[in-house]
Amino acid sequence: MYNSTPRLTVVGAGPGDEDLITLKAVKVLKDADVILYDALVNPLLLKHAPQAKHIFVGKRKGYQRFSQDEINDLIVKYAMAYGHVVRLKGGDPFIFGRGAEEMEYATQHELIAEMVPGISSSLAVPAAQNIPLTKRGSAESFWVITGTTKDRALSKDIALAAQSTATVVILMGMSKLSEITALFKAEGKAKLPVAIIQNGTTFQEKIAVGTIATIEEEVRKNGLSNPAVIVIGEVVKHRTQLNLIQEKVYVKSLL
Amino acid sequence: MYNSTPRLTVVGAGPGDEDLITLKAVKVLKDADVILYDALVNPLLLKHAPQAKHIFVGKRKGYQRFSQDEINDLIVKYAMAYGHVVRLKGGDPFIFGRGAEEMEYATQHELIAEMVPGISSSLAVPAAQNIPLTKRGSAESFWVITGTTKDRALSKDIALAAQSTATVVILMGMSKLSEITALFKAEGKAKLPVAIIQNGTTFQEKIAVGTIATIEEEVRKNGLSNPAVIVIGEVVKHRTQLNLIQEKVYVKSLL
Repeated sequence: MYNSTPRLTVVGAGPGDEDLITLKAVKVLKDADVILYDALVNPLLLKHAPQAKHIFVGKRKGYQRFSQDEINDLIVKYAMAYGHVVRLKGGDPFIFGRGAEEMEYATQHELIAEMVPGISSSLAVPAAQNIPLTKRGSAESFWVITGTTKDRALSKDIALAAQSTATVVILMGMSKLSEITALFKAEGKAKLPVAIIQNGTTFQEKIAVGTIATIEEEVRKNGLSNPAVIVIGEVVKHRTQLNLIQEKVYVKSLL
Repeated sequence: MYNSTPRLTVVGAGPGDEDLITLKAVKVLKDADVILYDALVNPLLLKHAPQAKHIFVGKRKGYQRFSQDEINDLIVKYAMAYGHVVRLKGGDPFIFGRGAEEMEYATQHELIAEMVPGISSSLAVPAAQNIPLTKRGSAESFWVITGTTKDRALSKDIALAAQSTATVVILMGMSKLSEITALFKAEGKAKLPVAIIQNGTTFQEKIAVGTIATIEEEVRKNGLSNPAVIVIGEVVKHRTQLNLIQEKVYVKSLL
């Protein structure tokens, strides 16, 4: 279906594994004229769109090639020139992805703007480590928080989260890990289980597991850094249980 | 790759739209010998597995054909008899899906158990209505809570959520809507925007939009009922803005 109006589709690429993208996202990639993609996107996904121009607009080694304003302008410029721009983002574009801002800017500039959700890293990275964010009887809710807000301070919600029974997931929080654990210690939760997963669902995956009291030492021992997902809650125990049983089954299946 | 050990794969089917399933999930469906699927799964997805037995184990019209214990037993029985059982669940199996429990039961019975995440309805249903759960400057976190806990009471976390700045998403909460709005009113948040979406991402989608003060009346007017996703927070405003601009662009594109 050809549509002569310039278009933006903001698309979630999922958490890293190239097969954790949706059929809908692949259809959109096949229809793209230009793809603007981020650093957290698996570049193997670009194979679904050999017909399109591929333009990297992410951060690399802390250096940001384009500001958000420049990316917004590129979206409009390319859509006017070529037709259908796909903005391919890691995880889900509406979860700390600024996808909604890009859609607003695009529509204000008379583009048709749509979005295709992706598997959010905040949920799928723990899941790939056998950590469910909810579990009947042990966690009836989960709270996903960015560690670094617009003004670079620690989100005030984390102090409230430390009081709740929610599984707490913190993205972009590695540089504030001491502050975060201090808030949970202040609530008497030094023994609460914690897992931190870097490069989740990819071959470079690294994990540190401990408690509020021990996790900083585990992070040092395992050499973890950003980008990582921090999971705090009793559900982390599920991983240990399930991994132990799985190992037994695998060993038996080899005999 | 044939593996003689009986296997369970718990698979997320996504929120409803048959294209919002991952490539990985489709690969697993093609390898299934038996599929046990729930009421919230789009039955069109079964076309990916013509080779497998399809067994419906969900609730229909409030009547539950199998208890969770019976489903656990079916998983083991079918895996022993046929090889690879796929447990296909709406949304994501680790988000209120009891997928972790089924994996534990399966591994205790010497099955290999794995999971494939799905697009969670808690995120994608609001997204399909142009509601991002986070937005720079207006929401730096989101909290997903089940309205109905194991003991059928309202989750205590909802009172704490009403104090937070998080976007609050409540699943399975329609029967407790009065209690929920009362908790937010007690925090002086009568004007906080609310959207409630039933059968999200499907052709039967219905939505009610209002505030904490008005949403119950809107639900009545629009005839909404379970299963629905309740979204509470300033991000709901984004939908109205974006829809208005989109309408203008669409109208212009038709001229």
